[in-house]
Amino acid sequence: MTTDTRPKEVAVQVDMEGAEFTIAGVAKGAGMIHPNLATMLCLIATDASVSADFLQAALQKAVDCSFNMISIDGDTSPSDSVFLLANAMAGNKPIDFDNGEAFQEALNAVCVHLAKSVAQDGEGATKLIEVMVEGAEDQAGARRAARTIVSSPLVKTAMHGNDPNWGRIVAALGRSGAEVKENKLDVYLNDVCVMKQGSPTPFGKEEMRLALSNSDSVLIRLCLNLGNGKATAWGCDLSEEYVNINSSYST
Amino acid sequence: MTTDTRPKEVAVQVDMEGAEFTIAGVAKGAGMIHPNLATMLCLIATDASVSADFLQAALQKAVDCSFNMISIDGDTSPSDSVFLLANAMAGNKPIDFDNGEAFQEALNAVCVHLAKSVAQDGEGATKLIEVMVEGAEDQAGARRAARTIVSSPLVKTAMHGNDPNWGRIVAALGRSGAEVKENKLDVYLNDVCVMKQGSPTPFGKEEMRLALSNSDSVLIRLCLNLGNGKATAWGCDLSEEYVNINSSYST
Repeated sequence: MTTDTRPKEVAVQVDMEGAEFTIAGVAKGAGMIHPNLATMLCLIATDASVSADFLQAALQKAVDCSFNMISIDGDTSPSDSVFLLANAMAGNKPIDFDNGEAFQEALNAVCVHLAKSVAQDGEGATKLIEVMVEGAEDQAGARRAARTIVSSPLVKTAMHGNDPNWGRIVAALGRSGAEVKENKLDVYLNDVCVMKQGSPTPFGKEEMRLALSNSDSVLIRLCLNLGNGKATAWGCDLSEEYVNINSSYST
Repeated sequence: MTTDTRPKEVAVQVDMEGAEFTIAGVAKGAGMIHPNLATMLCLIATDASVSADFLQAALQKAVDCSFNMISIDGDTSPSDSVFLLANAMAGNKPIDFDNGEAFQEALNAVCVHLAKSVAQDGEGATKLIEVMVEGAEDQAGARRAARTIVSSPLVKTAMHGNDPNWGRIVAALGRSGAEVKENKLDVYLNDVCVMKQGSPTPFGKEEMRLALSNSDSVLIRLCLNLGNGKATAWGCDLSEEYVNINSSYST
Protein backbone atom coordinates (compact mmCIF):
# COMPACT_ATOMS: atom_id res chain seq x y z
CA MET A 1 0.00 0.00 0.00
CA THR A 2 1.24 3.53 -0.84
CA THR A 3 -1.51 6.15 -0.49
CA ASP A 4 -4.02 3.29 -0.14
CA THR A 5 -5.80 3.45 3.24
CA ARG A 6 -6.88 -0.20 3.34
CA PRO A 7 -6.18 -3.54 1.69
CA LYS A 8 -8.51 -4.64 -1.11
CA GLU A 9 -9.15 -8.37 -1.31
CA VAL A 10 -11.94 -10.78 -2.18
CA ALA A 11 -12.56 -14.46 -2.86
CA VAL A 12 -15.43 -16.27 -4.57
CA GLN A 13 -16.07 -20.02 -4.35
CA VAL A 14 -17.88 -21.85 -7.14
CA ASP A 15 -19.28 -25.35 -7.08
CA MET A 16 -18.99 -26.74 -10.61
CA GLU A 17 -20.50 -30.17 -11.10
CA GLY A 18 -19.32 -31.31 -7.68
CA ALA A 19 -15.80 -29.89 -7.89
CA GLU A 20 -15.35 -26.67 -5.97
CA PHE A 21 -12.94 -24.00 -7.15
CA THR A 22 -12.01 -20.59 -5.74
CA ILE A 23 -11.05 -17.31 -7.41
CA ALA A 24 -9.28 -14.90 -5.07
CA GLY A 25 -7.80 -11.49 -5.79
CA VAL A 26 -5.96 -8.55 -4.25
CA ALA A 27 -5.52 -5.05 -5.67
CA LYS A 28 -3.74 -1.84 -4.80
CA GLY A 29 -4.00 1.74 -6.10
CA ALA A 30 -5.54 5.01 -4.96
CA GLY A 31 -4.27 7.68 -7.37
CA MET A 32 -3.35 7.93 -11.03
CA ILE A 33 -6.31 5.66 -11.59
CA HIS A 34 -8.15 5.81 -14.87
CA PRO A 35 -7.15 2.41 -16.13
CA ASN A 36 -6.87 1.65 -19.72
CA LEU A 37 -4.99 -1.37 -18.75
CA ALA A 38 -2.25 0.60 -17.72
CA THR A 39 -0.16 2.54 -10.57
CA MET A 40 -2.90 -0.05 -10.20
CA LEU A 41 -1.86 -3.63 -9.50
CA CYS A 42 -4.20 -6.56 -9.20
CA LEU A 43 -3.35 -10.20 -8.68
CA ILE A 44 -6.01 -12.86 -9.01
CA ALA A 45 -5.42 -16.54 -8.43
CA THR A 46 -7.64 -19.55 -8.86
CA ASP A 47 -7.25 -23.26 -8.23
CA ALA A 48 -9.55 -24.01 -11.18
CA SER A 49 -8.40 -25.94 -14.20
CA VAL A 50 -8.88 -23.55 -17.13
CA SER A 51 -7.62 -23.54 -20.73
CA ALA A 52 -5.07 -20.79 -21.38
CA ASP A 53 -7.06 -19.23 -24.26
CA PHE A 54 -10.27 -19.05 -22.29
CA LEU A 55 -8.40 -17.67 -19.24
CA GLN A 56 -7.10 -14.71 -21.27
CA ALA A 57 -10.47 -14.07 -22.94
CA ALA A 58 -12.37 -14.33 -19.64
CA LEU A 59 -9.95 -11.89 -17.97
CA GLN A 60 -10.35 -9.38 -20.81
CA LYS A 61 -14.13 -9.54 -20.49
CA ALA A 62 -13.99 -9.19 -16.69
CA VAL A 63 -11.54 -6.26 -16.90
CA ASP A 64 -13.72 -4.45 -19.45
CA CYS A 65 -16.69 -4.35 -17.05
CA SER A 66 -14.62 -3.65 -13.91
CA PHE A 67 -11.13 -2.09 -13.90
CA ASN A 68 -11.65 -0.35 -17.24
CA MET A 69 -14.80 1.26 -15.79
CA ILE A 70 -13.25 3.00 -12.78
CA SER A 71 -11.68 6.43 -12.55
CA ILE A 72 -10.21 8.25 -9.56
CA ASP A 73 -8.56 11.21 -11.23
CA GLY A 74 -8.52 10.72 -14.97
CA ASP A 75 -4.78 10.09 -15.06
CA THR A 76 -3.81 6.75 -16.55
CA SER A 77 -0.76 5.17 -14.98
CA PRO A 78 1.95 3.73 -17.20
CA SER A 79 2.04 0.55 -15.10
CA ASP A 80 -1.49 -0.66 -14.28
CA SER A 81 -1.60 -4.43 -14.38
CA VAL A 82 -4.03 -7.23 -13.69
CA PHE A 83 -2.60 -10.77 -13.42
CA LEU A 84 -4.65 -13.94 -13.28
CA LEU A 85 -2.99 -17.24 -12.35
CA ALA A 86 -4.63 -20.65 -12.41
CA ASN A 87 -2.98 -23.82 -11.03
CA ALA A 88 -5.70 -26.43 -11.72
CA MET A 89 -5.49 -27.86 -8.16
CA ALA A 90 -9.29 -27.87 -7.76
CA GLY A 91 -9.55 -31.00 -9.88
CA ASN A 92 -12.57 -29.72 -11.82
CA LYS A 93 -13.40 -30.68 -15.39
CA PRO A 94 -11.21 -28.28 -17.43
CA ILE A 95 -13.01 -25.02 -18.15
CA ASP A 96 -13.08 -23.69 -21.71
CA PHE A 97 -15.22 -21.50 -23.98
CA ASP A 98 -18.04 -24.08 -24.09
CA ASN A 99 -18.51 -24.43 -20.30
CA GLY A 100 -16.98 -21.22 -18.91
CA GLU A 101 -20.12 -19.35 -17.88
CA ALA A 102 -19.90 -19.95 -14.12
CA PHE A 103 -16.17 -19.17 -14.13
CA GLN A 104 -16.75 -15.94 -16.07
CA GLU A 105 -19.50 -14.87 -13.69
CA ALA A 106 -17.32 -15.53 -10.62
CA LEU A 107 -14.35 -13.77 -12.22
CA ASN A 108 -16.50 -10.73 -13.07
CA ALA A 109 -17.67 -10.61 -9.44
CA VAL A 110 -14.07 -10.71 -8.16
CA CYS A 111 -12.93 -7.99 -10.59
CA VAL A 112 -15.94 -5.72 -9.98
CA HIS A 113 -15.50 -6.05 -6.20
CA LEU A 114 -11.79 -5.16 -6.39
CA ALA A 115 -12.35 -2.32 -8.90
CA LYS A 116 -15.04 -0.77 -6.67
CA SER A 117 -12.71 -1.13 -3.66
CA VAL A 118 -10.01 0.76 -5.56
CA ALA A 119 -12.46 3.53 -6.53
CA GLN A 120 -13.79 3.82 -2.97
CA ASP A 121 -10.24 4.13 -1.59
CA GLY A 122 -9.34 6.93 -4.04
CA GLU A 123 -6.90 9.52 -2.73
CA GLY A 124 -8.81 11.90 -0.48
CA ALA A 125 -12.15 10.27 -1.31
CA THR A 126 -15.06 10.29 1.14
CA LYS A 127 -17.59 8.61 -1.19
CA LEU A 128 -17.91 5.90 -3.81
CA ILE A 129 -19.82 7.15 -6.86
CA GLU A 130 -21.59 4.54 -8.99
CA VAL A 131 -22.94 5.66 -12.34
CA MET A 132 -25.35 3.31 -14.08
CA VAL A 133 -26.44 4.12 -17.62
CA GLU A 134 -29.34 2.17 -19.07
CA GLY A 135 -31.26 2.31 -22.33
CA ALA A 136 -28.42 3.72 -24.37
CA GLU A 137 -28.43 3.29 -28.12
CA ASP A 138 -25.54 0.85 -27.79
CA GLN A 139 -23.09 -0.44 -25.21
CA ALA A 140 -20.22 1.74 -26.41
CA GLY A 141 -22.35 4.84 -25.83
CA ALA A 142 -23.40 3.57 -22.40
CA ARG A 143 -19.77 2.99 -21.41
CA ARG A 144 -18.68 6.40 -22.67
CA ALA A 145 -21.54 8.15 -20.85
CA ALA A 146 -20.96 6.31 -17.55
CA ARG A 147 -17.23 6.94 -17.64
CA THR A 148 -17.52 10.61 -18.62
CA ILE A 149 -19.99 11.34 -15.78
CA VAL A 150 -17.97 9.49 -13.13
CA SER A 151 -14.80 11.34 -14.24
CA SER A 152 -16.30 14.84 -14.30
CA PRO A 153 -14.60 17.15 -11.74
CA LEU A 154 -17.84 19.10 -11.39
CA VAL A 155 -19.90 15.97 -10.65
CA LYS A 156 -17.15 14.80 -8.26
CA THR A 157 -17.04 18.11 -6.36
CA ALA A 158 -20.87 18.30 -6.25
CA MET A 159 -20.97 14.84 -4.64
CA HIS A 160 -18.23 15.95 -2.23
CA GLY A 161 -20.53 18.84 -1.26
CA ASN A 162 -23.56 16.49 -0.97
CA ASP A 163 -25.28 18.54 -3.67
CA PRO A 164 -27.89 16.70 -5.79
CA ASN A 165 -26.81 18.72 -8.81
CA TRP A 166 -28.45 16.97 -11.77
CA GLY A 167 -27.37 19.82 -14.06
CA ARG A 168 -23.71 18.82 -13.83
CA ILE A 169 -24.61 15.17 -14.43
CA VAL A 170 -26.60 15.98 -17.54
CA ALA A 171 -23.91 18.38 -18.80
CA ALA A 172 -21.31 15.59 -18.57
CA LEU A 173 -23.69 13.21 -20.34
CA GLY A 174 -24.12 15.78 -23.09
CA ARG A 175 -20.39 16.03 -23.81
CA SER A 176 -19.79 12.29 -23.58
CA GLY A 177 -20.60 11.68 -27.22
CA ALA A 178 -23.40 9.22 -26.39
CA GLU A 179 -26.66 9.68 -28.33
CA VAL A 180 -29.16 11.52 -26.06
CA LYS A 181 -32.72 12.65 -26.68
CA GLU A 182 -33.41 15.22 -23.98
CA ASN A 183 -37.16 14.56 -23.79
CA LYS A 184 -36.56 10.86 -23.13
CA LEU A 185 -34.01 11.24 -20.35
CA ASP A 186 -34.75 10.08 -16.77
CA VAL A 187 -32.23 10.64 -13.96
CA TYR A 188 -32.26 9.06 -10.51
CA LEU A 189 -30.12 9.89 -7.48
CA ASN A 190 -30.12 7.04 -4.93
CA ASP A 191 -33.38 5.83 -6.55
CA VAL A 192 -35.08 9.22 -6.20
CA CYS A 193 -36.19 10.54 -9.60
CA VAL A 194 -34.75 14.03 -10.11
CA MET A 195 -35.45 14.30 -13.87
CA LYS A 196 -38.27 12.71 -15.90
CA GLN A 197 -38.42 12.93 -19.69
CA GLY A 198 -35.89 15.73 -19.64
CA SER A 199 -37.69 17.89 -17.07
CA PRO A 200 -36.60 18.32 -13.46
CA THR A 201 -39.01 16.75 -10.97
CA PRO A 202 -39.74 18.23 -7.56
CA PHE A 203 -37.80 16.41 -4.86
CA GLY A 204 -36.77 17.18 -1.29
CA LYS A 205 -33.41 18.83 -1.87
CA GLU A 206 -32.54 19.27 1.81
CA GLU A 207 -33.61 15.70 2.55
CA MET A 208 -31.39 14.48 -0.31
CA ARG A 209 -28.46 16.57 0.94
CA LEU A 210 -28.85 14.98 4.38
CA ALA A 211 -29.03 11.46 2.90
CA LEU A 212 -25.91 12.12 0.79
CA SER A 213 -23.97 13.51 3.74
CA ASN A 214 -24.82 10.42 5.82
CA SER A 215 -23.67 7.92 3.22
CA ASP A 216 -20.30 6.76 1.93
CA SER A 217 -21.71 5.97 -1.51
CA VAL A 218 -24.09 7.44 -4.05
CA LEU A 219 -25.85 5.86 -7.02
CA ILE A 220 -26.45 7.99 -10.11
CA ARG A 221 -28.71 6.19 -12.58
CA LEU A 222 -29.64 7.48 -16.02
CA CYS A 223 -32.23 5.93 -18.31
CA LEU A 224 -31.71 7.18 -21.85
CA ASN A 225 -34.72 5.19 -23.17
CA LEU A 226 -33.23 4.77 -26.63
CA GLY A 227 -32.06 1.15 -26.80
CA ASN A 228 -30.56 -1.73 -24.87
CA GLY A 229 -27.04 -0.46 -24.16
CA LYS A 230 -26.07 -0.41 -20.49
CA ALA A 231 -22.89 0.06 -18.46
CA THR A 232 -21.79 0.91 -14.95
CA ALA A 233 -18.76 2.96 -13.93
CA TRP A 234 -17.30 3.68 -10.50
CA GLY A 235 -15.35 6.62 -9.14
CA CYS A 236 -15.12 8.84 -6.10
CA ASP A 237 -15.65 12.43 -5.00
CA LEU A 238 -12.94 15.07 -5.45
CA SER A 239 -11.84 16.59 -2.14
CA GLU A 240 -9.41 19.24 -0.92
CA GLU A 241 -7.45 16.28 0.50
CA TYR A 242 -6.82 14.89 -3.02
CA VAL A 243 -5.19 18.19 -3.97
CA ASN A 244 -3.26 18.26 -0.72
CA ILE A 245 -1.90 14.70 -1.22
CA ASN A 246 -0.87 15.31 -4.82
CA SER A 247 0.62 18.78 -4.45
CA SER A 248 2.79 17.83 -1.45
CA TYR A 249 3.79 14.32 -2.66
CA SER A 250 6.94 14.64 -4.74
CA THR A 251 8.76 11.83 -6.51
CA MET B 1 -18.43 37.96 -13.94
CA THR B 2 -19.53 34.96 -11.82
CA THR B 3 -16.58 33.17 -10.20
CA ASP B 4 -14.27 35.26 -12.41
CA THR B 5 -11.93 37.37 -10.28
CA ARG B 6 -11.13 39.96 -12.97
CA PRO B 7 -12.35 41.22 -16.33
CA LYS B 8 -10.64 39.86 -19.44
CA GLU B 9 -10.31 42.30 -22.31
CA VAL B 10 -7.90 43.19 -25.07
CA ALA B 11 -7.68 45.27 -28.24
CA VAL B 12 -5.27 45.13 -31.20
CA GLN B 13 -4.90 47.90 -33.80
CA VAL B 14 -3.76 47.09 -37.33
CA ASP B 15 -2.64 49.52 -40.01
CA MET B 16 -3.62 48.03 -43.38
CA GLU B 17 -2.50 50.02 -46.38
CA GLY B 18 -3.16 53.32 -44.65
CA ALA B 19 -6.53 52.41 -43.15
CA GLU B 20 -6.39 51.50 -39.48
CA PHE B 21 -8.76 48.96 -37.99
CA THR B 22 -9.19 47.60 -34.47
CA ILE B 23 -10.15 44.18 -33.12
CA ALA B 24 -11.33 44.27 -29.52
CA GLY B 25 -12.66 41.44 -27.35
CA VAL B 26 -13.97 40.58 -23.91
CA ALA B 27 -14.39 37.14 -22.35
CA LYS B 28 -15.74 35.61 -19.18
CA GLY B 29 -15.42 32.16 -17.60
CA ALA B 30 -13.50 30.54 -14.76
CA GLY B 31 -14.95 27.05 -14.33
CA MET B 32 -16.49 24.36 -16.51
CA ILE B 33 -13.85 25.36 -19.00
CA HIS B 34 -12.61 22.81 -21.47
CA PRO B 35 -14.05 24.40 -24.56
CA ASN B 36 -15.00 22.43 -27.53
CA LEU B 37 -16.91 25.42 -28.62
CA ALA B 38 -19.25 24.76 -26.38
CA THR B 39 -19.92 28.73 -19.45
CA MET B 40 -17.37 30.60 -21.50
CA LEU B 41 -18.55 33.70 -23.34
CA CYS B 42 -16.41 35.78 -25.61
CA LEU B 43 -17.42 38.80 -27.65
CA ILE B 44 -15.06 40.25 -30.23
CA ALA B 45 -15.80 43.31 -32.32
CA THR B 46 -13.93 44.98 -35.10
CA ASP B 47 -14.48 48.04 -37.20
CA ALA B 48 -12.77 46.36 -40.16
CA SER B 49 -14.57 45.68 -43.40
CA VAL B 50 -14.41 41.90 -43.81
CA SER B 51 -16.27 39.44 -46.07
CA ALA B 52 -18.70 37.23 -44.13
CA ASP B 53 -17.14 33.96 -45.36
CA PHE B 54 -13.63 34.98 -44.44
CA LEU B 55 -14.81 36.29 -41.05
CA GLN B 56 -16.24 32.85 -40.13
CA ALA B 57 -13.18 30.99 -41.43
CA ALA B 58 -10.77 33.36 -39.66
CA LEU B 59 -12.66 32.98 -36.37
CA GLN B 60 -12.60 29.17 -36.63
CA LYS B 61 -8.82 29.26 -37.18
CA ALA B 62 -8.28 31.68 -34.30
CA VAL B 63 -10.51 29.65 -31.95
CA ASP B 64 -8.68 26.42 -32.81
CA CYS B 65 -5.35 27.83 -31.62
CA SER B 66 -6.77 29.69 -28.60
CA PHE B 67 -10.08 28.84 -26.88
CA ASN B 68 -10.04 25.23 -28.05
CA MET B 69 -6.57 24.90 -26.48
CA ILE B 70 -7.43 25.89 -22.91
CA SER B 71 -8.68 23.76 -20.07
CA ILE B 72 -9.47 24.67 -16.48
CA ASP B 73 -11.17 21.53 -15.25
CA GLY B 74 -11.89 19.25 -18.18
CA ASP B 75 -15.63 19.89 -18.02
CA THR B 76 -17.09 21.26 -21.22
CA SER B 77 -19.95 23.70 -20.73
CA PRO B 78 -23.09 23.37 -22.80
CA SER B 79 -23.06 27.09 -23.56
CA ASP B 80 -19.54 28.25 -24.46
CA SER B 81 -19.71 30.85 -27.19
CA VAL B 82 -17.41 33.13 -29.14
CA PHE B 83 -19.01 35.91 -31.18
CA LEU B 84 -17.21 38.12 -33.69
CA LEU B 85 -18.93 41.22 -35.07
CA ALA B 86 -17.57 43.46 -37.81
CA ASN B 87 -19.19 46.78 -38.81
CA ALA B 88 -16.84 47.96 -41.58
CA MET B 89 -16.55 51.47 -40.11
CA ALA B 90 -12.75 51.51 -40.49
CA GLY B 91 -13.08 52.18 -44.22
CA ASN B 92 -10.36 49.72 -45.18
CA LYS B 93 -10.22 47.82 -48.45
CA PRO B 94 -12.56 44.85 -47.76
CA ILE B 95 -10.65 41.91 -46.29
CA ASP B 96 -11.11 38.47 -47.81
CA PHE B 97 -9.24 35.17 -48.20
CA ASP B 98 -6.68 36.72 -50.59
CA ASN B 99 -5.60 39.59 -48.30
CA GLY B 100 -6.61 38.40 -44.81
CA GLU B 101 -3.20 37.59 -43.35
CA ALA B 102 -2.81 40.67 -41.13
CA PHE B 103 -6.42 40.37 -39.94
CA GLN B 104 -5.94 36.68 -39.10
CA GLU B 105 -2.75 37.42 -37.19
CA ALA B 106 -4.41 40.19 -35.18
CA LEU B 107 -7.49 38.05 -34.52
CA ASN B 108 -5.30 35.15 -33.34
CA ALA B 109 -3.50 37.53 -30.97
CA VAL B 110 -6.82 38.76 -29.52
CA CYS B 111 -8.16 35.22 -29.08
CA VAL B 112 -4.94 33.83 -27.58
CA HIS B 113 -4.74 36.74 -25.13
CA LEU B 114 -8.34 36.24 -23.99
CA ALA B 115 -8.02 32.45 -23.83
CA LYS B 116 -4.87 32.74 -21.66
CA SER B 117 -6.67 35.26 -19.44
CA VAL B 118 -9.52 32.78 -18.95
CA ALA B 119 -7.08 29.97 -18.10
CA GLN B 120 -5.12 32.18 -15.68
CA ASP B 121 -8.34 33.18 -13.88
CA GLY B 122 -9.45 29.54 -13.45
CA GLU B 123 -11.42 28.82 -10.30
CA GLY B 124 -8.97 28.58 -7.41
CA ALA B 125 -5.96 28.89 -9.71
CA THR B 126 -2.68 30.38 -8.54
CA LYS B 127 -0.71 29.77 -11.75
CA LEU B 128 -1.07 29.80 -15.51
CA ILE B 129 0.36 26.65 -17.07
CA GLU B 130 1.54 26.85 -20.68
CA VAL B 131 2.37 23.60 -22.44
CA MET B 132 4.24 23.86 -25.71
CA VAL B 133 4.75 20.72 -27.76
CA GLU B 134 7.21 20.85 -30.64
CA GLY B 135 8.54 18.34 -33.13
CA ALA B 136 5.47 16.10 -33.04
CA GLU B 137 4.81 13.78 -35.95
CA ASP B 138 1.85 15.93 -36.92
CA GLN B 139 -0.19 18.85 -35.63
CA ALA B 140 -3.08 16.66 -34.41
CA GLY B 141 -0.63 14.72 -32.19
CA ALA B 142 0.91 17.95 -30.91
CA ARG B 143 -2.54 19.34 -30.01
CA ARG B 144 -3.58 16.11 -28.29
CA ALA B 145 -0.31 15.95 -26.29
CA ALA B 146 -0.45 19.61 -25.22
CA ARG B 147 -4.09 19.40 -24.18
CA THR B 148 -3.70 16.10 -22.31
CA ILE B 149 -0.73 17.39 -20.29
CA VAL B 150 -2.37 20.70 -19.41
CA SER B 151 -5.56 18.85 -18.32
CA SER B 152 -3.84 16.23 -16.15
CA PRO B 153 -4.89 16.53 -12.48
CA LEU B 154 -1.49 15.15 -11.44
CA VAL B 155 0.43 17.73 -13.49
CA LYS B 156 -1.91 20.43 -12.19
CA THR B 157 -1.46 19.44 -8.52
CA ALA B 158 2.33 19.11 -8.99
CA MET B 159 2.45 22.67 -10.34
CA HIS B 160 0.26 23.79 -7.42
CA GLY B 161 2.90 22.27 -5.11
CA ASN B 162 5.76 23.90 -7.10
CA ASP B 163 7.11 20.44 -7.79
CA PRO B 164 9.19 20.05 -11.01
CA ASN B 165 7.71 16.58 -11.47
CA TRP B 166 8.69 15.61 -15.03
CA GLY B 167 7.42 12.06 -14.41
CA ARG B 168 3.82 13.20 -14.31
CA ILE B 169 4.31 15.30 -17.47
CA VAL B 170 5.79 12.40 -19.38
CA ALA B 171 3.10 10.00 -18.09
CA ALA B 172 0.39 12.32 -19.43
CA LEU B 173 2.24 12.58 -22.75
CA GLY B 174 2.37 8.81 -22.90
CA ARG B 175 -1.39 8.40 -22.57
CA SER B 176 -2.22 11.25 -24.96
CA GLY B 177 -2.09 9.06 -28.03
CA ALA B 178 0.62 11.16 -29.67
CA GLU B 179 3.49 9.24 -31.24
CA VAL B 180 6.49 9.35 -28.83
CA LYS B 181 9.97 7.86 -29.08
CA GLU B 182 11.30 7.89 -25.54
CA ASN B 183 14.97 8.21 -26.54
CA LYS B 184 14.22 11.34 -28.58
CA LEU B 185 12.22 13.20 -25.95
CA ASP B 186 13.50 16.48 -24.42
CA VAL B 187 11.57 18.27 -21.66
CA TYR B 188 12.07 21.81 -20.41
CA LEU B 189 10.56 23.53 -17.37
CA ASN B 190 10.81 27.32 -17.62
CA ASP B 191 13.64 26.79 -20.15
CA VAL B 192 15.63 24.52 -17.81
CA CYS B 193 16.20 21.13 -19.42
CA VAL B 194 14.96 18.40 -17.06
CA MET B 195 15.02 15.51 -19.58
CA LYS B 196 17.32 15.00 -22.58
CA GLN B 197 16.78 12.16 -25.06
CA GLY B 198 14.52 10.41 -22.60
CA SER B 199 16.92 10.56 -19.64
CA PRO B 200 16.51 12.87 -16.65
CA THR B 201 19.19 15.55 -16.48
CA PRO B 202 20.63 16.86 -13.22
CA PHE B 203 19.05 20.18 -12.30
CA GLY B 204 18.73 22.24 -9.12
CA LYS B 205 15.45 20.91 -7.78
CA GLU B 206 15.28 23.26 -4.77
CA GLU B 207 16.19 26.22 -6.98
CA MET B 208 13.43 25.21 -9.42
CA ARG B 209 10.92 24.85 -6.58
CA LEU B 210 11.77 28.35 -5.41
CA ALA B 211 11.45 29.77 -8.93
CA LEU B 212 8.06 28.07 -9.37
CA SER B 213 6.78 29.31 -6.03
CA ASN B 214 7.73 32.88 -6.91
CA SER B 215 5.97 32.91 -10.28
CA ASP B 216 2.35 33.06 -11.38
CA SER B 217 3.08 31.10 -14.55
CA VAL B 218 5.07 28.09 -15.67
CA LEU B 219 6.16 26.99 -19.14
CA ILE B 220 6.37 23.27 -19.87
CA ARG B 221 8.03 22.64 -23.22
CA LEU B 222 8.43 19.23 -24.84
CA CYS B 223 10.44 18.52 -27.97
CA LEU B 224 9.41 15.18 -29.44
CA ASN B 225 11.98 15.46 -32.27
CA LEU B 226 9.88 13.42 -34.70
CA GLY B 227 8.44 15.95 -37.14
CA ASN B 228 7.09 19.44 -37.60
CA GLY B 229 3.86 19.31 -35.58
CA LYS B 230 3.56 21.92 -32.88
CA ALA B 231 0.83 23.24 -30.60
CA THR B 232 0.42 25.21 -27.38
CA ALA B 233 -2.22 24.69 -24.70
CA TRP B 234 -3.00 26.71 -21.58
CA GLY B 235 -4.47 25.74 -18.23
CA CYS B 236 -3.99 26.33 -14.54
CA ASP B 237 -3.02 24.52 -11.36
CA LEU B 238 -5.56 22.53 -9.32
CA SER B 239 -5.95 23.88 -5.80
CA GLU B 240 -7.93 23.05 -2.65
CA GLU B 241 -9.81 26.28 -3.42
CA TYR B 242 -11.15 24.83 -6.71
CA VAL B 243 -12.68 21.94 -4.77
CA ASN B 244 -14.03 24.31 -2.14
CA ILE B 245 -15.70 26.57 -4.75
CA ASN B 246 -17.29 23.70 -6.62
CA SER B 247 -18.44 21.61 -3.67
CA SER B 248 -20.11 24.55 -1.91
CA TYR B 249 -21.57 26.25 -5.03
CA SER B 250 -25.01 24.81 -5.67
CA THR B 251 -27.32 25.65 -8.56
